[in-house]
Parts: sequence; structure tokens; C-alpha cells
Amino acid sequence: MLVRDAGEFRLIELLAETLAAEGAEGQDFTGTDAPKPLAGIGDDAAVWEGEGGTRVLTTDAMVEGVHFELGLTRWRDLGWKAMAVNLSDVAAMGCLPTCSVVTLGLRGNLPVEGLVDMYRGMAEACRSHGGRVVGGDVVRSPVFFLSVAMEGQANIKGPDGGGAILARGAAEIGDVIAVTGSLGDSAGGLRVALAGERFDDSTGRLHTAHFRPEPRLVAGQELARAGIRAAMDISDGLVGDLTKLCEASGVGAAVRGDDVPASQELRRRFPDEWLSLALTGGENYELLFTGREETVRGVSESIDVPVTTIGEIVEATHGVRVMDVKGDTVDAERGGWDHFVKGPAGE
Amino acid sequence: MLVRDAGEFRLIELLAETLAAEGAEGQDFTGTDAPKPLAGIGDDAAVWEGEGGTRVLTTDAMVEGVHFELGLTRWRDLGWKAMAVNLSDVAAMGCLPTCSVVTLGLRGNLPVEGLVDMYRGMAEACRSHGGRVVGGDVVRSPVFFLSVAMEGQANIKGPDGGGAILARGAAEIGDVIAVTGSLGDSAGGLRVALAGERFDDSTGRLHTAHFRPEPRLVAGQELARAGIRAAMDISDGLVGDLTKLCEASGVGAAVRGDDVPASQELRRRFPDEWLSLALTGGENYELLFTGREETVRGVSESIDVPVTTIGEIVEATHGVRVMDVKGDTVDAERGGWDHFVKGPAGE
Repeated sequence: MLVRDAGEFRLIELLAETLAAEGAEGQDFTGTDAPKPLAGIGDDAAVWEGEGGTRVLTTDAMVEGVHFELGLTRWRDLGWKAMAVNLSDVAAMGCLPTCSVVTLGLRGNLPVEGLVDMYRGMAEACRSHGGRVVGGDVVRSPVFFLSVAMEGQANIKGPDGGGAILARGAAEIGDVIAVTGSLGDSAGGLRVALAGERFDDSTGRLHTAHFRPEPRLVAGQELARAGIRAAMDISDGLVGDLTKLCEASGVGAAVRGDDVPASQELRRRFPDEWLSLALTGGENYELLFTGREETVRGVSESIDVPVTTIGEIVEATHGVRVMDVKGDTVDAERGGWDHFVKGPAGE
Repeated sequence: MLVRDAGEFRLIELLAETLAAEGAEGQDFTGTDAPKPLAGIGDDAAVWEGEGGTRVLTTDAMVEGVHFELGLTRWRDLGWKAMAVNLSDVAAMGCLPTCSVVTLGLRGNLPVEGLVDMYRGMAEACRSHGGRVVGGDVVRSPVFFLSVAMEGQANIKGPDGGGAILARGAAEIGDVIAVTGSLGDSAGGLRVALAGERFDDSTGRLHTAHFRPEPRLVAGQELARAGIRAAMDISDGLVGDLTKLCEASGVGAAVRGDDVPASQELRRRFPDEWLSLALTGGENYELLFTGREETVRGVSESIDVPVTTIGEIVEATHGVRVMDVKGDTVDAERGGWDHFVKGPAGE
């Protein structure tokens, strides 16, 4: 079987099964201090109980021609985004970033000035959202790629005294489903950029959402503090990511399509497609979470971004469905982004 | 300026300067728990004081056609080596591995069975040397690459009560210079493989050294316990790496070429070139360290691998020189591996 036939999600499953079967827990060299994994492959970040508390480790890579094009993105924005997508994973776990390392795979004909500017963008993201770049590796590669690995730490104590961690598998039937911010702007911004259009006042918000996303670190902290337990960041599109959350939790979801938040800018620029973009567009980096209705209401009052309730967690047999006002199921092009099938830059 | 003109080491310098100038220490979100970096970009791993003790974070990437060829290496060995090079960095800091994440950049036409076997090799390395794979990221890429990021923890207490960390910048004039194991076997193994020769009993050691290197974790622990402070792993060749250690410490080095340890297998297979391979061959993953003569003597008795004293740390003005028995300077093709200039697979 080839990678392209297996697809990203099946492949990750197979690799995780391999590690489990092979006992990749490793030799217990450190005695009583051996890390105890709490959530593993498949969540936004891996979580373990280390000395000094609950820690997370996440990594995200971006490849030229697959995740970005140098002709479309500014170097500084590329650096910002490389950090932001990892910061978003840390935020989605309810943690704060500590340190990160950057791997660069570089073609020899890339401009050093561009790379320096990219690092300025990384530093900007650290200044705005925390964490620091402490090291990395630079290697030669025929294709330009960058990969960031970031460590984070649980900063909020849970009811059991351990770190309060947000996870995909904690949604419960009867929970309401909520999201931060508005959805689809990033996918809209990518479309505008790929069409070769200049961004102006009416589309600037879409540009920012795609090229300079804001990770929701403060919001993630608020969720953990309020006692929310189920969350993830929306990197592959609302419907695809909600499906993953439901599968991890063994539940289903009923989403009211008309309640899905979309910006005026997105609705105006894509009058026929905004809902589809909001439901399936990738790289949002907003937080998707579930919880008791009163908890979610409390959170939406204390948090620094808009929170919108979009549906309910239901029995698994219901599946994940988006409905219109009449209660009919909306075909939302389920599945999200499988990077081996379609990517922002196509192939 | 292009990357190929700047070269790897100058580029890393520039990027590190950018982070320092931009204040990439990041916003202090965590209050008193903000990580305090102790050693940053340029050492084998970044070190910081986190909650629960001294921690390190390192990353190493391997790119098809640059660091490996699928026609030459077995999938399982590739997985082993990807973990081993990171484990070696953790060992060189005197630490033990906790958790790691793996980033895969995959061509769609790679065989899934190969990748599963590669993960088996990663699990084997974890079982043998500690740590575990807790997560990762899989992305589409026109060129196959894998990048591992690994966290480690100082396990030995230093005289000040903090973690005893080995670092490049701690060599002092009057120290003796020592290495573990024998050098050049990996470079010899690569030559044999590139020549298309089959490995046999007389060259099996060279094959293992290149394709399945053993990280020196136990040795690294012994060094830290004995009070050794200056060490690094030899990934770019003895002379190149010793030069980096001397530059970081502000000292020079006088190496006795005839004392550099090389295996019988290497000497027999490369009768004219073994010394050059031992002095400059990359990917050894043995430990290079310096310390007081009596400390090094004590270590060589307690450690699980052969330790050879090969020279002395001297004044910086002396530079880094390798001498033959007559005291004449050996031209060791100084510089080590700059992956933008020459790599194992050429370009």
C-alpha cells in the first residue's frame, strides 16, 4: 500500500498502532520519574506527567508548495505562522508554551535575508503569545520546509490537583458545542490570494486570518480555568475536526448551520460559499470546545474573544450532522483536509 | 546573500543573532515559572530551568538524498538512526530522554509498510536507550524527510544542586581531551555502502556504525556523575567538532593523531585513509569531552565503553592542531561537515 492510498489519517493510525505494539514506551531509565503519557498520538499535542507537572509536546511542519508558496506569503508572516500553528496546539490543550526548537530544510538558493526576516516573524509570535525559540537544526533539502516542535506546560490546576488539560476525548452527550471567533476567514483569504487579487479593506481580515493567524492562548487558559475539558483547535475545518473530536469521545454532534459564526467580510466576498468555507475551510486556528451549557455561558462572558454556541453533543449513532433552520441535513463536504488528497497549494 | 554562499554555520549564527536582537525570550506568561535558558542555539541541545528541574530540547532532521538513500538503508535502520541521533544529543548534554515527537514529510508513493518498519526501528531505539515517541505530525512533501524533536531531563545533580549539564563551552586550559569508542567507522561504512560493496564480517562493524549507531547515554550519565562539564557528540567529525568546542570555550587544542582511536576493521579496509576518516568523518555519535586528567582517568574506569585520551586543551592562540609523533602538524582537512557544501549523498 502506498501513502497516497492510505491517506493521512489511516497512516497515522497505523504508525500509532506500531508504536503501541512495539512498546515504544521505552526503557524506564529514570526510575520513578518516567514520563506517564496521558494523551498520545492523535490529540493536538502529546501530554505527559513529568517532574514539575503536566507537560505537552507538539510539532507542526510546513512544506513549500504544499502549505505555503513564497510568491504568496511574506517571509515574516511565514515565520509568524510556523510558530502560531504550534502555539494554537498548545492553546488547544489549555497549556502555555515554554520552549521550542525549529528545524529548517533549506534549498541552497534561498535568500538569507528572507530567512532572517522569517525568524523576526517567529520572534514576534513569541513576544505576542509566549514561549521562546531555544534551538534547532538546519539541513540541506531540495525542498524548503520548516518544522517547529514546542513544549508547553499546564498552568491551571484541575479538580484532582493535576494540570487541567483540554482533550479531544472528553466530550459528553448533552454538552453544547461552541467555537471561538469566526470560521472560514482563513480559507477565504487563501482563495483571494490564489486568485491573484490584491487584498483591500474589505478582505484584509481574510488575509490576516490566513497569513497571520492568532493562536487562542488566553482563551485556552480561560476554558481550562472554567472547567471545560473537551477542546481542540480547528486546523482541518470545523466538520472534519468535530468528527475527530466526536470519534475520540465516542459521541455524535448536531450542528445548527445557521449559527456557525462567519464574518461580514467572508459573507460579502463569498455570498454563495461562505457557509461551506466556514464548515470545511482549514487553518482557522479557532478553538472548538464542548461543555455544560451553563459552563459555556460563563466562559463566553469571561473570555477575550467571541464565543458562539453552534449545536449539541448527541448519541454516536446520530453521526456528525449539520442542519439548516428547517432541520434538513446540510451537505458540508465532510472530511476536512487530508493533506495527501488536497492541500492549499494543490498538487 | 544565498544560503549556499553563507553556509550552515554562518547561517545559524545569523538566525541566532536575529532571535537575540528581537527578544525571542517571549512574554513571561507563566510568572515565576518562565523558562530560563542556560545554553541556547549552538549546543547539542537547548537547556533551560523549568518546573521540576533542568530540561533539554533538541531536534535533528534527515532528508532523502542528503542524509540517506532508500536504496542503501533499511527502513528499520532509518527509524533507529533518526531516534539515535537525537538520543546522542541528549546523551551529550548528560541528560536522559523523556518524550519525543516525529515529523514526517512524505511523498505519496512511499510504501506504508516501509514507514511502519521505520517506526519499529524507532521503537527499538527507545526500548534500548529510553524515551518514548508520544506524537508527531505527518505532512505531504515532494521530498521525503523526517525530523525528531526530543525532550530530555538532567538526572544527575551538580555541585550547586541544579542539574549537572555537559556543555561545549566548559573546556579549560590544562584539561585533557578524550573520546569514547573508536572514530571513523561510520564514514568508512558509508564509503563501503556507496561503493556498492556487500558488507561482510570484516566490515560489519562499519555498517553498524553508520546505519545503526549507538547513542552514548550511559556514558553521558557517567561523565556528568564524575564531574565532567565539557562534552559534545561527534556528529560532524572530530576536528570540526573539537573546533566548535574550543570556539565555545575560548581555548585551543593539541591532538596527538597517533592516539586517535580507530578500529582494526577501519585500518584494514582503509589502510591509507583511516586517520583522515577518524579525524574528519561525520556521524560518529561518540562523545568528545575534556576534564582534569585524574577525573578523565576515573571516568575511563567506570564507563561502559573504551575511553581514549587524545590530547590537551591549550591556549586559544594555538588553534586546533593535530600532530604526528614527531610533533609535525597533520593536515586533517579541517572543517567537518557543512551540509550545504558537502553531504554524504553529495549534490
